[in-house]
Amino acid sequence: MKTWRMGSGDPQRNAQGRLCHLLTLEGLRDVEIIELLDTAASFLDLGSRTVKKIPLLRGRTIVNLFYENSTRTRSTFELAAKRLSADVLNMAIASSSVNKGETLLDTVDNLLAMQVDGFILRHSEAGAAHLLARHLGEQAWVVNAGDGQHAHPTQALLDLFTIRHLVGPIHERVVLILGDVLHSRVARSLIQGLSILGCPQIRVLGPRTLVPPELVHLGVHVFQDDRAALEGVDVLYALRMQKERMDVQPLPSLEEYHRRFGLTPERIRLAAPGAVILHPGPMNRGVELTSELADGPQALILDQVTHGLALRMAVLARLAGGSG
Amino acid sequence: MKTWRMGSGDPQRNAQGRLCHLLTLEGLRDVEIIELLDTAASFLDLGSRTVKKIPLLRGRTIVNLFYENSTRTRSTFELAAKRLSADVLNMAIASSSVNKGETLLDTVDNLLAMQVDGFILRHSEAGAAHLLARHLGEQAWVVNAGDGQHAHPTQALLDLFTIRHLVGPIHERVVLILGDVLHSRVARSLIQGLSILGCPQIRVLGPRTLVPPELVHLGVHVFQDDRAALEGVDVLYALRMQKERMDVQPLPSLEEYHRRFGLTPERIRLAAPGAVILHPGPMNRGVELTSELADGPQALILDQVTHGLALRMAVLARLAGGSG
Amino acid sequence: MKTWRMGSGDPQRNAQGRLCHLLTLEGLRDVEIIELLDTAASFLDLGSRTVKKIPLLRGRTIVNLFYENSTRTRSTFELAAKRLSADVLNMAIASSSVNKGETLLDTVDNLLAMQVDGFILRHSEAGAAHLLARHLGEQAWVVNAGDGQHAHPTQALLDLFTIRHLVGPIHERVVLILGDVLHSRVARSLIQGLSILGCPQIRVLGPRTLVPPELVHLGVHVFQDDRAALEGVDVLYALRMQKERMDVQPLPSLEEYHRRFGLTPERIRLAAPGAVILHPGPMNRGVELTSELADGPQALILDQVTHGLALRMAVLARLAGGSG
Repeated sequence: MKTWRMGSGDPQRNAQGRLCHLLTLEGLRDVEIIELLDTAASFLDLGSRTVKKIPLLRGRTIVNLFYENSTRTRSTFELAAKRLSADVLNMAIASSSVNKGETLLDTVDNLLAMQVDGFILRHSEAGAAHLLARHLGEQAWVVNAGDGQHAHPTQALLDLFTIRHLVGPIHERVVLILGDVLHSRVARSLIQGLSILGCPQIRVLGPRTLVPPELVHLGVHVFQDDRAALEGVDVLYALRMQKERMDVQPLPSLEEYHRRFGLTPERIRLAAPGAVILHPGPMNRGVELTSELADGPQALILDQVTHGLALRMAVLARLAGGSG
Repeated sequence: MKTWRMGSGDPQRNAQGRLCHLLTLEGLRDVEIIELLDTAASFLDLGSRTVKKIPLLRGRTIVNLFYENSTRTRSTFELAAKRLSADVLNMAIASSSVNKGETLLDTVDNLLAMQVDGFILRHSEAGAAHLLARHLGEQAWVVNAGDGQHAHPTQALLDLFTIRHLVGPIHERVVLILGDVLHSRVARSLIQGLSILGCPQIRVLGPRTLVPPELVHLGVHVFQDDRAALEGVDVLYALRMQKERMDVQPLPSLEEYHRRFGLTPERIRLAAPGAVILHPGPMNRGVELTSELADGPQALILDQVTHGLALRMAVLARLAGGSG
Repeated sequence: MKTWRMGSGDPQRNAQGRLCHLLTLEGLRDVEIIELLDTAASFLDLGSRTVKKIPLLRGRTIVNLFYENSTRTRSTFELAAKRLSADVLNMAIASSSVNKGETLLDTVDNLLAMQVDGFILRHSEAGAAHLLARHLGEQAWVVNAGDGQHAHPTQALLDLFTIRHLVGPIHERVVLILGDVLHSRVARSLIQGLSILGCPQIRVLGPRTLVPPELVHLGVHVFQDDRAALEGVDVLYALRMQKERMDVQPLPSLEEYHRRFGLTPERIRLAAPGAVILHPGPMNRGVELTSELADGPQALILDQVTHGLALRMAVLARLAGGSG
């Protein structure tokens, strides 16, 4: 398993300890996370107004710098920025043109020379956002929108928001994460966030190749048996199974995965009463969960999307507002 | 020939009978079409002002959801939305990524969870816009920007606008549609619109494989002989020949098509004095019409484009304005 | 060597001699260039404000019409337009779809019918922008953002701005251009601009295949020996080496090029004290110059980018403002 040593110091804080980038939830204080969630809550009703726009970041330029294709995540950040009245520059950089000899940092230096205010970076390599943050210092801010198998902090924050907003206090809930925990940046960030907010028990469940016993070092309880794992769980978090990965590793087929770990009405009954289902999307219906559950009242998957927009507005407002 | 059964009820109206989507011209009342054309007329001079923008839809979010590539149609809708001060999210979804397992409705549900106001949908499958409208109900509106061989209502509306604005009352004009009527969503929608506005005679002309006698069920007069078809015609509507189709079906070559049905100065002389030429674009010069005619005074092809922008503003204002 | 005969008359001026397009620096008067540079200077500090936006072109529509892929140049123009509050329509037209039968002029006529105000055109064919300007007349303006091996006037203007702003009066400086001068639109435009502003000596240096003696007809001093070329030079302008070209022509390898002509700390010492380095980007580190120099105090490469944004705002304001 790869490790993500990011060098010494805390690259997401300035010399005064103020958060000036959002790279990972690791090292955030609970009050910092709660402040972001509270700000997101204040943006939540904006989306139901006719005029879904506030002038908070008018005249700022935000770059969506995506080295990995992700229409969904890009769209959420683009809408979040536009609703704050910022100008957005979309840069989708195909891996092919990366080979043209211009490095990430040269690209960023150019954009910086155009006086952009901040970057939303998605990159296939773990550590890319940290590298960028160290390079930028306080010249501009960066939000990590997913870097390799390392971190995806805004996804985890919206998940925390959803649990807190629709389920209850995180320090009173048992959470089970199902699937490929080993390779998932979503799982990694979520586990960190749950820990910081005092979640009393974080469980993981999946095939041994994807949830090996060594994961205990993340502070989780590792299960390979579904019945034991589900008992008393309040929040079921199903990770997306990467079909691509299936082909190259000795894993169960998607059918086999669904049979052993997929969420079904029967399996849900083993969890605590009122247990809810979260998924980072896009889901594979019939693999991570049945279509019936996906469209049922226990699934908070679309609430997550709504919260994701408000949460990203909060993150942008927090980082960009600082320079105003 | 495929049929487009869209289920029972009228999916483009709400329970009170109000138009809340624009999927097809089928079933529209003449006054509804005329109201849209009148609204478009009121937007027409905006384009010649220095500041081509009104704040009607400020703070609304409109998604250009294009499953078929069409830079032209996407651009027109994007400009129409921006001139109404809406925010536009462009989503070009390649057919390749459709296979990643996320369905149209899952994609839309996600965008809906981001509280977007409406969708402009282009899709290669007939019925896609109807499916979406039934799914959305009154949560958001959808404009059909072309679904398979089914319908393309905004194209037909701009054609009606052009005839009414530059030629005269539709109930006094004879219209001839030339080309692949059988497979054309443009032709289908135009025929419906002309009928609703009382066009006294709608003729179609083309090779027997593309205008079979059964087309009379659409309420048109079917011609395979060009001289008879052209006599007394006020409006010549040349459909775009799809070169791609040529390769797979037993059709005449493009040269042969031009020789038999292409608009030429000689052929135009057979029509009524002052007859005009329309084309939905992009045209194949030397196929559907000669380059000389395309650039001549009888061609209203660029007027159609100008009118298309005003018309699309009218449609967006009508649908989006309703929720304000 | 190709020639770029653009026909008679001056297509970038109207009948009154006013500049209504920007196609090339050829034929511009020194006062016209200086006015553009002065306007750019007035925009320079806008980028360091929190609200980087002025309403000068509010309600105007500008089309980024790119037939050649160039994320960097497209982004600069997009940001320049947005900071002037214009609406921007990005049209990236892949060479593949060019074959669909719609010509550049048909595409432009369509956009013109949508009442757009101006075009930023990048095209692989020399003369494309001239063709477009002749077609448009005063209906809309066009900025040439690079046409084949012909011209790239905004790049040259930002280079002139950088020299004037950070080095000193152009009529007192010796400039050396290094690399593939023969095929470079950047070099061609820069040489014209330097001549117009009275640069006392313009030198070029590179392999004989790329800087043949015939280049003297451009009014430059041709060198193949680096020591003689560098002596007394104030401004070192390194052109980007096109790796693609390397494969098809009998040129030295990139390593060989760097060994003979690449800028190194040793070579720089041969130039005048305080000599600076410019490069149009994106640079190939270790080819045109060492990484050490690229990041050192003599390199003005990122200043060029900052100036490029202000300069493009000045060009857009000049051309678009005229119709207001």
